[in-house]
Amino acid sequence: MTTDRFVLAIDIGGTKLAAAVAGPGGGLLARETVPTPRAVDAGQLWRGVEALAARVLGAAGVGAAELAGVGVGCGGPMDWPAGVVSPLNIPAWRSFPLRARLRDRYPGVPVRVHNDAICVTAGEHWRGAGRGAGCMLGMVVSTGVGGGLILDGRLVEGRSGNAGHIGHVVVEPDGPACTCGARGCVEAIARGPAVAAWARRQGWRPGQPDATARDLAADGARGDPVALAAFGRAGRALGIAIASATSLCDLEVVCVGGGLSQAGPLLFGPLEESLRAHARLEFARDVKVVPAALGQDAGLVGAAALVLAAGRYWAGD
Amino acid sequence: MTTDRFVLAIDIGGTKLAAAVAGPGGGLLARETVPTPRAVDAGQLWRGVEALAARVLGAAGVGAAELAGVGVGCGGPMDWPAGVVSPLNIPAWRSFPLRARLRDRYPGVPVRVHNDAICVTAGEHWRGAGRGAGCMLGMVVSTGVGGGLILDGRLVEGRSGNAGHIGHVVVEPDGPACTCGARGCVEAIARGPAVAAWARRQGWRPGQPDATARDLAADGARGDPVALAAFGRAGRALGIAIASATSLCDLEVVCVGGGLSQAGPLLFGPLEESLRAHARLEFARDVKVVPAALGQDAGLVGAAALVLAAGRYWAGD
Repeated sequence: MTTDRFVLAIDIGGTKLAAAVAGPGGGLLARETVPTPRAVDAGQLWRGVEALAARVLGAAGVGAAELAGVGVGCGGPMDWPAGVVSPLNIPAWRSFPLRARLRDRYPGVPVRVHNDAICVTAGEHWRGAGRGAGCMLGMVVSTGVGGGLILDGRLVEGRSGNAGHIGHVVVEPDGPACTCGARGCVEAIARGPAVAAWARRQGWRPGQPDATARDLAADGARGDPVALAAFGRAGRALGIAIASATSLCDLEVVCVGGGLSQAGPLLFGPLEESLRAHARLEFARDVKVVPAALGQDAGLVGAAALVLAAGRYWAGD
Repeated sequence: MTTDRFVLAIDIGGTKLAAAVAGPGGGLLARETVPTPRAVDAGQLWRGVEALAARVLGAAGVGAAELAGVGVGCGGPMDWPAGVVSPLNIPAWRSFPLRARLRDRYPGVPVRVHNDAICVTAGEHWRGAGRGAGCMLGMVVSTGVGGGLILDGRLVEGRSGNAGHIGHVVVEPDGPACTCGARGCVEAIARGPAVAAWARRQGWRPGQPDATARDLAADGARGDPVALAAFGRAGRALGIAIASATSLCDLEVVCVGGGLSQAGPLLFGPLEESLRAHARLEFARDVKVVPAALGQDAGLVGAAALVLAAGRYWAGD
């Protein structure tokens, strides 16, 4: 290899760890995904990440000397840009100095760590469904509802690196309790587990006791009325939150990904309906809602963008 | 005069026209305010603005050759950055080419026109209550509810120059009808005329038939229970909208100005209460709400900032 524009991209979530080597254009040359180890301590988990990274570099035939940098998406919350992480769904890491460890492991090149939903947003904007948009909100609707914000062509960081976190926009002031302690946040209504729990309370009786929103979506596709109502409720909440974000940030595109977005029209139909009812100002009316295009790769592509397109996607130190 | 860092600043609203000459630090050397002429055509209004500008330049002893530029805040909507304006409250101007006219009148220097609420935001951030904040929402709560958004130290424009327009963030999905055509926007509840109208419906009987929210605030200060309830309702709506904006944009400071903010604790008390109930995420909890500091000058100072601090406050052509 004669170029040094390869980037090691890592995506660390509560369910799986993924790593890849990204080429200069964001293409993924090698990719491996493993389940996130359970019942491990902080050091064991770190060594698992280290080993995974070494394997994808080996598979791509890229030596550490050929690396332009390391980009990482990791579940939040985190201290940004310090990259000290305490992922909600990874109890082994509390105030784990992920960025510092990676800097020790890969000295001499930029190492950048950001929130996983922000990496998904950067990936979709750089190489996915949001390509070319000046102002885009990226959303990940899954176990939680997160996101990232591109305004005037650049990733917005905010005061603490959390800009774009749409999950706690209020859509129903006296609505259901949210894990954050408030009421009526869009996340409290539209996150996958809340959608499934609401359906159960309305009488949904899935085959398996541990059925999730994915099973609910399958039932919805078969016409189950409770499933349709559950996705309708979630879609309407998302539409209201998107309408508020569109007016406030003068958005052009909203890119929606994450597990729940796989429900397709069950979710996007009512979402569009409530968005159009609430986004009535002339400048807000034309906002487009598009499904994410990169699927499972979005987080890795965005992590690579923190290094390969730093002018647009990285404002940290 | 030996420097060319003077800026002609103009603020065009439905009630009054103001102009001043701003020195390089944003101080206003001369200032004049006149009522916005009624029953005039587009050309007559333009000549009124021209004459007002000439008078303040004369009063400051600044010749056109000493001008570094012209900055203007004007009521929206407008085509930005073209500066073709159709202010809601100035029927004489519909698609009026304000920026082009000013360029003809002051050739060879930058002429920049932006939304009046955005100029207020820029002014408060540059020289007022938001000084030093990396991420600030500026709000003007008056006949309408408008605003501007500073993120990562710079004014955000958005797709069409409307970023920061918080008035149509949804705070009550099935709430009162808004002038935009939707329901439950914060503006529909918290704009001055809506607050006064709600109080009348609840039995407020002011002395004069044309009493406004200002009179309602005076009655509230004397303990009138309907007035207290009316400002409570408006404050709670503002608090919810601010909570949503804080989570979404990771704000540090929210600066609230405009006529209704003169009600002080009547408004800010319930605003704080509902904001704190809804902004529960760790990164959102510390947001500060501060009253605007520059009063009537904010729009003029911000208009000057479009030229004197263009790197932070102007991204147009």
